[in-house]
Amino acid sequence: MERVAIIGCSMTQFGQREGWIQDLLAEAGLECLEDAGVDADDVEHLYVSNMASGEFEGQTGVMNGLAHDIGAIPAYTQRIDQTSSSGGAGIYAAWQSVASGASEMTLLVGGEKMTHRTTGESTDVIASITHPAEYKTGVTLPSFAGMTARHYLERFDAPRESLAKVAVKNHRNGVDNPHAQFQKEVDLETVLESPIVADPLRLYDFCPITDGSAALMLCPESVAEEYADDYVVISGIDGATDTHVVHEREDPTVMGGVVESGKGAYEMSGRDPEDIDVAELHDMFTILEFLQMEGLGFAEQGEAWKLVEEGYTERDSGELPINTSGGLKSKGHPLGASGVAQGVEIYEQLVGEAGQRQVEADVGLCCNVGGFGNCVITTIMEAAQ
Amino acid sequence: MERVAIIGCSMTQFGQREGWIQDLLAEAGLECLEDAGVDADDVEHLYVSNMASGEFEGQTGVMNGLAHDIGAIPAYTQRIDQTSSSGGAGIYAAWQSVASGASEMTLLVGGEKMTHRTTGESTDVIASITHPAEYKTGVTLPSFAGMTARHYLERFDAPRESLAKVAVKNHRNGVDNPHAQFQKEVDLETVLESPIVADPLRLYDFCPITDGSAALMLCPESVAEEYADDYVVISGIDGATDTHVVHEREDPTVMGGVVESGKGAYEMSGRDPEDIDVAELHDMFTILEFLQMEGLGFAEQGEAWKLVEEGYTERDSGELPINTSGGLKSKGHPLGASGVAQGVEIYEQLVGEAGQRQVEADVGLCCNVGGFGNCVITTIMEAAQ
Repeated sequence: MERVAIIGCSMTQFGQREGWIQDLLAEAGLECLEDAGVDADDVEHLYVSNMASGEFEGQTGVMNGLAHDIGAIPAYTQRIDQTSSSGGAGIYAAWQSVASGASEMTLLVGGEKMTHRTTGESTDVIASITHPAEYKTGVTLPSFAGMTARHYLERFDAPRESLAKVAVKNHRNGVDNPHAQFQKEVDLETVLESPIVADPLRLYDFCPITDGSAALMLCPESVAEEYADDYVVISGIDGATDTHVVHEREDPTVMGGVVESGKGAYEMSGRDPEDIDVAELHDMFTILEFLQMEGLGFAEQGEAWKLVEEGYTERDSGELPINTSGGLKSKGHPLGASGVAQGVEIYEQLVGEAGQRQVEADVGLCCNVGGFGNCVITTIMEAAQ
Repeated sequence: MERVAIIGCSMTQFGQREGWIQDLLAEAGLECLEDAGVDADDVEHLYVSNMASGEFEGQTGVMNGLAHDIGAIPAYTQRIDQTSSSGGAGIYAAWQSVASGASEMTLLVGGEKMTHRTTGESTDVIASITHPAEYKTGVTLPSFAGMTARHYLERFDAPRESLAKVAVKNHRNGVDNPHAQFQKEVDLETVLESPIVADPLRLYDFCPITDGSAALMLCPESVAEEYADDYVVISGIDGATDTHVVHEREDPTVMGGVVESGKGAYEMSGRDPEDIDVAELHDMFTILEFLQMEGLGFAEQGEAWKLVEEGYTERDSGELPINTSGGLKSKGHPLGASGVAQGVEIYEQLVGEAGQRQVEADVGLCCNVGGFGNCVITTIMEAAQ
C-alpha cells in the first residue's frame, strides 16, 4: 500500500482570540492551502477536529461552515471528536481517508474556541469527558493529575522539582514559537510558588485554556511528489483506549492507551523508541510528560524524572528533545487543535522549517491524550526528502 | 483492494426512551456483537455516530463510555459528527478504517437521546447545523422545507396530495417495523388536515424527535466469510457538500450533495440507478423524498411525485420500494442513529432478514442528508451470498 504523506501545515496564533470558531478554522485552513500549494477545489475530504463547538458556542456543522469559508464545496466533510485527543484522531482519520483510496487530498483542520467562556464553564465541559461516576463526585482531570503526581513522586522517590522542570523547559521552548500563547520563560521558583490547584500540582503545572487552530494537508506519496520536494510520511499510527473509569486501572502511573497506541505505531513503522529524534507529548499536566515518556519506552517506569533532571529532553543539548514547540504548557491547549499542532511541530522539524526551535531529526513522534488517558493516539512521522 | 463487508446489525426500539445516551449505545452495541457473533475483544475500532450528546445531555466522551460498557477496551474509539447525516458518515468512516487496513473489525454504533429536551430546545440545537446568516433570522430547517415544497409543487404542477402520499406510504411500512416509533397507519385526510408547520407542509410531513440507537459490524470480506454465510458488501460510498448558505443554491429543488455523492457511489460500485432494488432515503420532510429520488436518478427532475402517485415506490407492489423501514417519518429520527438505521434496513433486506417488510433485493442504496442537504452521504450495498 502506498504511504501517506504530509505536504503542508499551518497554525494560527494560539491564545485569547477575537471572533468565533469558524474564523479560527478558516484562518488555519486557508494558510494550509497556501503552504501546501493546493487549490481548495482539489480538496476531496475536509476533516475538522473539534470537541465541543456546540457546547462552547452553540454552533454545530462547523465542518460545513469551513468548506463554505475556504471554498472547498463539494468536498466531503466530517467532524472528528475524541475529546482532548481529537486532533490526533483527526490525523488518523485523514490517514485512513488517503490510505483507503477514498481521498487523494485531505485537509485536516483542528480548532477550538474556549476563552470566551469562564474557566468554570470550560471546566464543566472538559469534566464531562470522563465517567460520571468520577466527575460527578468532583474527581475532574486536574484532581486525577494531582493524585497521580503525588503517587508518582512518593513511589519513585522523585523530587517535586523534577515536575516543575518540565514546565520550565516547555516554557523556554515556547519563547521561540511565535504562535505560542505564552512566549515567556518561567523559573523554577515561580512554578514551585504558584498557587496550588491539586496538591502537589500548582498553577504552572497546568496548561492554559486557549483559542486556536492548526492544519495539515495529507495525500498519497505519489501525489506529494508533485507538490513538494521535502515532505513527511506517516510511517506509524495507532490509537487505543484505557479504562473509562480511571480508578479501575491497576497502576495509576501506567497509561494503557499510551502503551498500546505506542506499540501499534512502533510496529507499523518498524521503529523503536531509540529511533525517535524528537517528540511532542501531551503535557496538559506536567506529570503527563513523565507518564508518556515511560509508556512510550523513552524511559523505564519511574525513571522519566531522572532524564528530565539530566537534561535528556532539552531542545538544544538533549538526546531526545521533547515539546520543542513549547508543548500544551506554553503553546496552549485548544482541545481539537492540540493534536494537529503537535503534528505541525513534528512536520516542521522534519522538513527543517522550525526556525529557532530547529533540532536535527529524521523521525518524530506525537502522542495526543484524551481525558486522563481514556483514549490516546500515537503517530510516527519521517522525513522523506 | 479487498471489499468491505457488513456481517451483523442491531437496532433498539426507537421512540421516547428512558435512561441516557450511554444506555442506548450500549444496548445497540451489545446486540450487534451478538448478531455478528463477534467478541468485544475482537473489535479493533469502535465508532460512534452522534451529533450532540454534549448539547443534549452535557455528556461528552460517549465513545469511550461505550468501549467501557460493552467491554471493548483497548479498542480505538472515535465520535463521528456530520450533523443529521452522522450515521452515514459513520458508515463511511468505518468503511475507511477497514479499507485502509487499520482495522479488521469495526463496530459502528449510531445514537441520539433527544426527547428529554423540549421540542424548542431540540430545535435550537438542530437549527445550529446551518449557517447563522439563515437560522439566526428564523430560517430553520422546517422553513427551508416549506419554501422548497411550495416552489416544487408550483413549478412542477404537482398536487399537494403527492407529498402526503409519501407520509402515508412510509407510515404503512412502519407498521411492520417493530422498532419504529410510530407503528400506525395514517390516511391522506389525516396528513392533509394536520396542523400547519411551514406552509404548505403540515405536522405529518415531518419526522418526529426520537431517542434510539442502531449498529453495524464491518470487516474485510475475507474475515466476513469466517463469520457468516450471508453477508453484505459496500460496493459504493461517497459523500459531498452543497452550499452551506442554502439560499445561494441556483435551483432549490436540486440538492447538489445528493447528486455528487450519488454519482460517486454509482461510479465506485459500477451500478446505475436502474440496478437499485430497494432504497432508504432521508425523509426528514416529505419533500426530501422527492428531491433525493430525482438527485439519485430514480426520476427526472420534477417527476418524482408522479412515481409516488403511480405506486412505483410502494413496498409490496412497486418497482423500487423506498423506505421499507418506515423511513425517518414513522421510524423516527434520532440524529446520529438514522444513517446507521438506514444501513440496518438495507442489510436486513439484502440478507433476507426483513420479516414482514421483506422485498426482493440484491442491491440497495441509502442516502443520508445533513442539514438541508449541506452534507450528504450515499451508500450502495450488495448481497454477497
